[in-house]
Order: sequence, then structure tokens, then C-alpha cells
Amino acid sequence: MKPMSDPSKKNTDAKSGFLTRQYGWLSEYSGQVFTDDIVAAIIVTILLVPQSLAYALLAGLPPQIGIYVSIFPLIAYAIFGSSNYLNVGPTAVISLMTAAAIAVLPEETRLASAAMLALLTGGFLFIGGLVKAGFVMNFISRPVVSAYITGAALLIIVSQLKHIFGISADGNTALSLLKDITANIGNINKAAFAVGATAIIILWSIQKLLAYTLVRLKMKARRAQLIARMMPVFVIGIYILLSYFLNLNSAYGVRIVGKVPAGLPPLALPSGGLADYEILIMPAIVIAIVAFVDSTSTAQELASRARGRIDSNKELLGLGAANFVAGVSGGYPINGSMSRSAVNFTAGGKTPMAGLMVAGMMALTAVFLTPVLKNLPLATLAALIIVACFNLLDFKSLWRTWVYSRADGLTAITAFLSVLFFGVQWGVLVGVVLAMALHIQSTLKPHMALVGRFPGTQHYRDAERFKVETNEQVKTLRIDESLYYANARYLEDKVARIVAKSPKMTDLILMCTAVNRIDASALSSLKEINKRLKSARINLHFSDMQSRVRERLNRSEFSNQLTGQIFLSQFEAMEMLEPEPDWERLSDHMDIH
Amino acid sequence: MKPMSDPSKKNTDAKSGFLTRQYGWLSEYSGQVFTDDIVAAIIVTILLVPQSLAYALLAGLPPQIGIYVSIFPLIAYAIFGSSNYLNVGPTAVISLMTAAAIAVLPEETRLASAAMLALLTGGFLFIGGLVKAGFVMNFISRPVVSAYITGAALLIIVSQLKHIFGISADGNTALSLLKDITANIGNINKAAFAVGATAIIILWSIQKLLAYTLVRLKMKARRAQLIARMMPVFVIGIYILLSYFLNLNSAYGVRIVGKVPAGLPPLALPSGGLADYEILIMPAIVIAIVAFVDSTSTAQELASRARGRIDSNKELLGLGAANFVAGVSGGYPINGSMSRSAVNFTAGGKTPMAGLMVAGMMALTAVFLTPVLKNLPLATLAALIIVACFNLLDFKSLWRTWVYSRADGLTAITAFLSVLFFGVQWGVLVGVVLAMALHIQSTLKPHMALVGRFPGTQHYRDAERFKVETNEQVKTLRIDESLYYANARYLEDKVARIVAKSPKMTDLILMCTAVNRIDASALSSLKEINKRLKSARINLHFSDMQSRVRERLNRSEFSNQLTGQIFLSQFEAMEMLEPEPDWERLSDHMDIH
Repeated sequence: MKPMSDPSKKNTDAKSGFLTRQYGWLSEYSGQVFTDDIVAAIIVTILLVPQSLAYALLAGLPPQIGIYVSIFPLIAYAIFGSSNYLNVGPTAVISLMTAAAIAVLPEETRLASAAMLALLTGGFLFIGGLVKAGFVMNFISRPVVSAYITGAALLIIVSQLKHIFGISADGNTALSLLKDITANIGNINKAAFAVGATAIIILWSIQKLLAYTLVRLKMKARRAQLIARMMPVFVIGIYILLSYFLNLNSAYGVRIVGKVPAGLPPLALPSGGLADYEILIMPAIVIAIVAFVDSTSTAQELASRARGRIDSNKELLGLGAANFVAGVSGGYPINGSMSRSAVNFTAGGKTPMAGLMVAGMMALTAVFLTPVLKNLPLATLAALIIVACFNLLDFKSLWRTWVYSRADGLTAITAFLSVLFFGVQWGVLVGVVLAMALHIQSTLKPHMALVGRFPGTQHYRDAERFKVETNEQVKTLRIDESLYYANARYLEDKVARIVAKSPKMTDLILMCTAVNRIDASALSSLKEINKRLKSARINLHFSDMQSRVRERLNRSEFSNQLTGQIFLSQFEAMEMLEPEPDWERLSDHMDIH
Repeated sequence: MKPMSDPSKKNTDAKSGFLTRQYGWLSEYSGQVFTDDIVAAIIVTILLVPQSLAYALLAGLPPQIGIYVSIFPLIAYAIFGSSNYLNVGPTAVISLMTAAAIAVLPEETRLASAAMLALLTGGFLFIGGLVKAGFVMNFISRPVVSAYITGAALLIIVSQLKHIFGISADGNTALSLLKDITANIGNINKAAFAVGATAIIILWSIQKLLAYTLVRLKMKARRAQLIARMMPVFVIGIYILLSYFLNLNSAYGVRIVGKVPAGLPPLALPSGGLADYEILIMPAIVIAIVAFVDSTSTAQELASRARGRIDSNKELLGLGAANFVAGVSGGYPINGSMSRSAVNFTAGGKTPMAGLMVAGMMALTAVFLTPVLKNLPLATLAALIIVACFNLLDFKSLWRTWVYSRADGLTAITAFLSVLFFGVQWGVLVGVVLAMALHIQSTLKPHMALVGRFPGTQHYRDAERFKVETNEQVKTLRIDESLYYANARYLEDKVARIVAKSPKMTDLILMCTAVNRIDASALSSLKEINKRLKSARINLHFSDMQSRVRERLNRSEFSNQLTGQIFLSQFEAMEMLEPEPDWERLSDHMDIH
């Protein structure tokens, strides 16, 4: 039984208190674990340095901001988060969402607005953690997440083409970007294109072929993978040298990163962006949702590989704290990185200490290494982003979803297209709403059946499927689902149909065993049904109603309008109403109501 | 049984064809019906003339536009609609939504944009009718509709205060309007305030007291009501005379309607607004939904009073055609008016002919009566709108909903506040999404139970509620609801919990009698469960699965991964799996999978 995560354990953990659960790994920390962690941290840092520059540029921010959000937020996550393997920091999708959110604001306030956005995102996530809002994960279906990520990756690839071609192009949707690119394609910078195209080919080949080749040369698969993952930093080193010695910027007009200020980020609340916080609230909510869903999926995946478990409410707190700290250190929203977390796991990282080590190494980078990055061509960074996004494209699962279920496929494709054509912030919202709508659509016609008594018992069964005793005067309709706004009208129709077919009926019993809830709209429908039955001289009764539902009905004015009674059980209802053979009692009964 | 609407009739009607059903009333048209219709039409027109000016101004358009949309759209609705009593034309809520939609566009293109908006709204509604999208009514809960209308009425009242005070105030939300009003309250025009305040008091008194007084003077209730409804036109006449003789505009600065061009609207596609159609798509969709829900509710209410029935898909066609015609006659979006339709019904209108008559009389007004309207003070029109909106405020039902159900109450209050603080277009959307989310929230934990064999039968019952035969090796979990993305994780947890408590279990059967659907997310969860059970050396089986669900599972790659089997019935599953007493067969079985 061991491999299964044990939910009963969760409570014990909770009782043993925050500190023990959170920092249990500290008391068991050993030299071997330290070695594992530091090896993983070095490899993650090598991956993170170029990514941090690239994603900051993708967000429309200066490159050093990417380094800034790779320091303090990692420390905050190590303190508050629940995953041992998650590497938080700048990521492609959240960077693109940041770009879209701050694009509407004036250029000079964008830096402060990005920090404000991180503060708000962090605030929403942290509050979500405090009120245990982890259940919102349940609202986001897997096809939507997968389609959303594929759409965002494609949009990011399109957004980076301008750097590969060395032209300018603006916009937050695939359409507007492609329009700009087409218009400016005549101004293509051949040197930039040479840099970008070769970088894509080299990075792509390393990723696809190197690990494969090394394994064929008898290297262990894990080691081969790690070497392949570390290669990009050397490729980038080569392009920096090329750029420096060939004077790519001044002689050929290839755009480069430029001077990156050295030093650690200042810790302060963002100032200029305060006026724009109203505009940033909605984007912050959407970013918080995407960051949470994305990070939690990654963390859960890695935890289950190690037979562990993560707590989604803890994840909210961890991500919230990390984003808040990103905000006060002049950064922008961050989340858990799928690629770097996987590298961390594969490289043998064991505890949150690895995250703290990465933060330390990034701080050293910020202080000492920035002069090296000055000559890096933007086209090389764009190539790095594009190749990273190739891995996120998952058209196969989109297709598999469509084959399995048209409804799920439709939702996924709509989310995918929404990202491309309306912008990255719309994909999740549209997907979530459509998934809810299609589910509700599937419940519009709840199952209901006229039932009769199973001979010799007190059991009532579907009259169409079983041989049961039925009755012309007193009919019983069993309702097999909760009544709520979307299916209430169907009940109205169903009752109307039964009445039309039952000329001798005097009493209709609604048997509510499976009705867990009657909402206000369904109550209106019941009132309407009661009114119509009354004018047809038929009494309406209820039986087998759950006590919670009954109490609520009794509180409303409907209980006074009801022509019949609310019986505790179906048995009692039939005892009272069945007209055998005492006809007088029945007519008495009809007079009473 | 007669009073009940008979759904079986619907099919017969449909078979007898479009023409008969739609125009049946024409073949039976008589002199008496003609008299009824023309009396109702005159009364509706008297009500409509001032309303049409007022609502056009509310929409931010010239007053004659209100008259224009009271002519051709009524003809279109008479041809395509299904209600005998609905009076379409300009209404308060849709006018306010139009104002919000075109406010973002430059002033000089608003006229064309409003017409474009009507075209788009009409297009969406008509297409909705063709694809039989009437079921969307089911997505909108009654508390949301009622809260939305109350919120919109309150917002409209606030938006009209500027005319009562004779100041200027802009904005589409209660907050921004009140901010402007507070800032300009020093510039109040006393003459305008005198006109507006007295008009509100007079119109309000007529509405509340006149009908009551007339009834007490032994007049028939229906006639008293109609007289009270017709009085506003005389009040407005008095204010026109006052304005003319006292020179309210030039001498006191009271704003008046001004010159209203005479003549019929030109029939043409809107030209200038074409560039803005992208901005208008979302507002048009929301207006189409609100117009449809609002009109259909009114039409259904009146139809059921006359023991009739309306077809919501026909309503979509009728409203779509009417809005389309409003668009090509230089108008703006329209819908069914609750107040005028009620007057039409009460006054004895019997057929769509009454609507055609109203259209004819409004055409005469457009040609001959516009000079009369020039001196009408805007404050009087604002008073007319405000008093009309008093009738739409329904705080009582908001309160009653809250008392009955916190979830419904929360939805209603959120919709109400969204209208006031984010603008009228948000109320319905927010309400619809929140209602869906709260419903899904209530289904996150579907009912499931471990079941056992009822002694001596082949029936399986909840092992916690009945004395049944259970088995340590082979356990059966009955799932009582469809599996979909929101509850799939709960199944994962439930299975984990069962495994933790069942050290001897070798086989788990999921009994799927009540599972109508397994969506792609739930399929992922089943794969996950299968994988985890496999590593715990437990086989996963299914029984009693509906053939539709089974076929779909067989199409997916899951059927190859499954460690157990999909049995047709629970009986067959237990026959195969139950380890009594043949232990060898069981171990054979385990080797196979």
C-alpha cells in the first residue's frame, strides 16, 4: 500500500504543526544531501542565467530584472512553499502575460507597473492560500491547461520572430504580430538573421541529438541529459564572443542586450505604478490563476515521481510570498518553471536548500557577471526562447482530446485559439467558462422516472424498467439529481407531459431521495408547477426529502402555497394518499388542501 | 388537464408547418379582434411616443432615433416573432447598454456605430434562432435576471439625475456618475430642478394613486389601470406648453429636446461604423443575451396568463429580425418592453396586428408630430425614465433569495453590484459565470459508496447503510455521478483512501451504473489511478458501464493500459473475480494482467 499517498496522514501532519512539516528536511540534512543539492543548483543556475535575461526581455523589461526575480523570490518560496523540487523564477508564459498587461500603460511607468503587478499577484495568491482556495484547481480541466500552454508557446514563438529577423513588430496577439512582421519583412537585418537562425539550429540539435548520441556512446541516460541541458550556456558564450570580436552591433546593426547594471535589486515598494493598480487587478488575478495551476501541476508531477505529495494551499502561500517579494525587489510576476524544476529533479536536487543555493549564485551573477552579458545578441536570446517553447507545443494531446471527446476537444481548441487571437490572458478564462458551460449543458436533462411499488416490498422502482405496481390516481416521479437553475425548466416540462398523459391523476408525489439541493430558480419552478397543477385540480406532494432541503423549503413562502404535503418517506406518502379502497378518505384529503 | 400547456402538441404544430403556426391568427381575424387590437395599439402608442424620445437620449443618441426604432422593427417582429402580446422597441436597459457600448467610440461615429451594434445584435439573435440556441435561457438563473434588472434600473436612475439637476455628468458606472454629480452640484439649474422634481412627483403620484382612487370611485380595475397608464402623455403635454410659454430654454437655461427632424428613417446599411465592428462584437453578444432573456421572460409570462406558450427559438428569430431592421433603418438595439407589453395585454390587444398598428401610428408621429416635441424639457423626460425605473427595482426578491439560499443570494448580489460598479454590460456575465461556478462547486464531491451483495440476491447496496456481504480481496466502489474534470480528483483521493484501509485487496471494481459521461480530465485521473493501483499490485476493473461510455473508453489508449477488465455487469464481474474457494483461478487471473 505504501506507494499510494495516504490522505489520512495529512491530518496528522497538520496537527504536528507548521514548523515540523515545513522544515522537517532541515533536521535530517546531511553531507550527501548537501552534495546532491549543490550539484543540482549549479546546473539550474547555468540554465537560469540566459533564461532570466531572455524572459525579462519577453516581458518588455530591462534584462537585469530577470536576474533580480531569480534571487529573493527563491528564498521566499523555500520558506513558504511545499515542493522540494520546484524552481520558481521568470518563465515564458508569465513573462508574456506581464508584457500584455503592462503594454497598455505609458512606457515610463512600466517598470513600476510590473512590480505592482507582482505585488498584486502575490497578494491574491497569498490570500488564496490563507482562505484555502486550492480547490480552484478543480475548475480547470486538463485539456484547457494543455491547450493553453500550447497556444501560449506558439504565441511566444511568433513574438520572438522579430528578433530573429532583426525588425520591429508590436502586438499581443498572433494576428497583430504577424501583420507587423509582414509589413516590415523588407527591412530584415541579414546579420541578425544569421545569428538567430544558426542559434535555433544549434540549440535545437543539441537538445534533440546530443543526449541521444551520448547515450549511444555508452554514457548513462541521466548524465547525458544533464550535459545536453547545460550546453546552451556554452552556445551563448560563443555568440557573446562572436558579437564582441565581429562588432556585430556597431558594424552590422545587430541588436544586443547592452549594458546590464551590476548589483543587487533595491528593496522597496513600487512607487510609480500605484495610480494604475485598477488596470492591473484583472491581469493580476488571471496571472495568479495561471501561475498557480501551472506551478502546482509541475510540483505535483515531480512529487508523485518521488512518491510524495504536495499541499495546494501551501503552494498558494509559497507562490504568493515569492511574487510579493518579486514585487518589493523591483521585479515582475514569477512562477514555477517546468523546465528548470525538471532539471533540478533529474540532477538530484533533494530539498529546498537547492533553491536557496540557486538564489545565492544568481546574486553573485548580479554583482559580478553582468559585464559579460553586454554583447549578447538579442537574436540569440530569442533563439533560446523559441527552442524552449518548442518543448511546450503539444498538438498531439490536443488531437487526442478531440478524438476522445468532442466537447473536451472543442473547449481545448477554443482556449488555444483564444490565446492566439485575443491574447494570452484570455485563453484560461475562455477555457474555464466554456468547460463549465459544456458541463452544465450536459446536465440540462436530469434523469427522472415514474416509479411504482416492487410487489411485496416497500421499494419503489422505475416503472418502465421493472414490473411494479402503479396507480392511476397517485403517481410518483422520482428525481435523480439536484434541482437547480439549469434543469428546473426541464422538470416543468416533464410534469406537464405526465399530466397530459394521466387524465385520472389527483396527486403527484415528487420523490426527492437524490435531491441534495433545490436552488432559488428551482424553487420558482416548483411554485409554477404547484400553481399549474392546482388549476388542473392535482395536489403536489414531496417524499423522501433530505432534512436539510426540507428545512430550507419550510423557511420559504412556498410551504404555504403547496397544495399537498411534504412526507418524511415514500411509504408514509402512499399510506396517506393511496385510494384503496377508502374513497371517502381521499375526498376528505382533497378538501383539506 | 386543458390549462396545462401540452408539449406533445408542439410536434404536431411543427409538422403543420411554419406558415400555419405563425399566421394562424390571420385566418381567424374578425371585427371584434380588430377593435380590441386598435384600442390597445392607441394606448401603447401614447405610452411609446415620450418613451421613445427618452430612451434614445438615454442611449446617447438624437431623440428621433427612438421614434425610428419604433416603426420598422415592430413590423419585422410581427412577421418573425412568436408572441401575440410582446411590444418590441426602445427600452431602458438596452438603451443604457447601447450608451455604454458606443461611449468608447469617437462622437462623430456613434450614430453609425449604434446602427452597427443593432445589426450585429440582430445577426447574433437570428443565427441563434436558426441553430435553435433557445436553450441558453437555461444558463441564466432567475435570481441573476432579477438582480440584474434591479441594478440596471438603479444605474439608470443615477444616470438621469444630471438632467433633473440641469448639470452635466458622464460615466457608465454608478461611482463615476456620482463623482461627476458631486463635483458639479454647485452649478445646479434651479428651473430644471423645479421641472424635473415636480414631474417626478406628479408622474409617481399618478402611477401610485390614480388607479387606486379610480377603483375606489367604482371604476373597473382594468379601465382604471389603463387611464393611469395613459396620463403621462398629458403630463408631458403640460410641460411642453410650460416650456414654450415661459421660454424655459432661452430665459432659464433649461435644456430641451430641440428640433426633431420630421420624416421616416432612411433604409440603408450603416456606413461609418464598419471600422469599429471589432469593438462592438462583445457588447452585441451581451446585448443579444440580455434582450433575449428579458423579452422571452416577458413573453412567457403573458403567454401563460392566456394559457398559451411561446417558442424560445422563434423569439430569437423575431428579435433578431427586429434588431436587424433597426440596424438598417439607422436605429439602435431594441427588445421587448415589459411595461408596454403589459399595457398591450391589459388593454385587450389580441394579435400581432396590434404591433403593426403601433408601427403605423409611430410612422405618422415621425412625419407629422415632431415639431410639437421640440420644447419638451429633458428634465421631464428624465423624470419619465426615473419613474419607469422605480417599477423595476425589486429589492424584496433580492432579499428573499438571500434568505432562501446563501449561494443564490451571493450570486444575485454580485450581479447587482457588478452592474452598479463595473457597468451594465458586466452584470449578466458575472452572474452567469458565478452561478455556474457555484453549481460546479456543489458537485466537487460526488456521492460514491463501497457496496456489497444483498444476501440471496444479485443486488448491490451501500455497505455502510445495509447489511450486505462484502469481501476483503475484491472490493466494489459504486460511483453515483458522471465523472468530469471538477470531481475527478476527488475519485483519486477516494480510491487512495480505500487502498490505505484495505491491506488484503487484490481487485477494485468501479461500478459505473450512474456514470453518464467520463470526460478527458476524468480519463486522465483514471489512468493515474490505474498506474498507482498497479504499483500496489491491485487490478482495476469496471462494471455496469453504459455502452456509450464503454465504447469511448475502448477508443482511447487507456483500454490497453488497464490492468483489469471492463465487465458488462456487476454480476459477471463478481462471478469472474470472487475468490471462493478457487484460489488458483485468482492467481491465474492476476498473471494474465
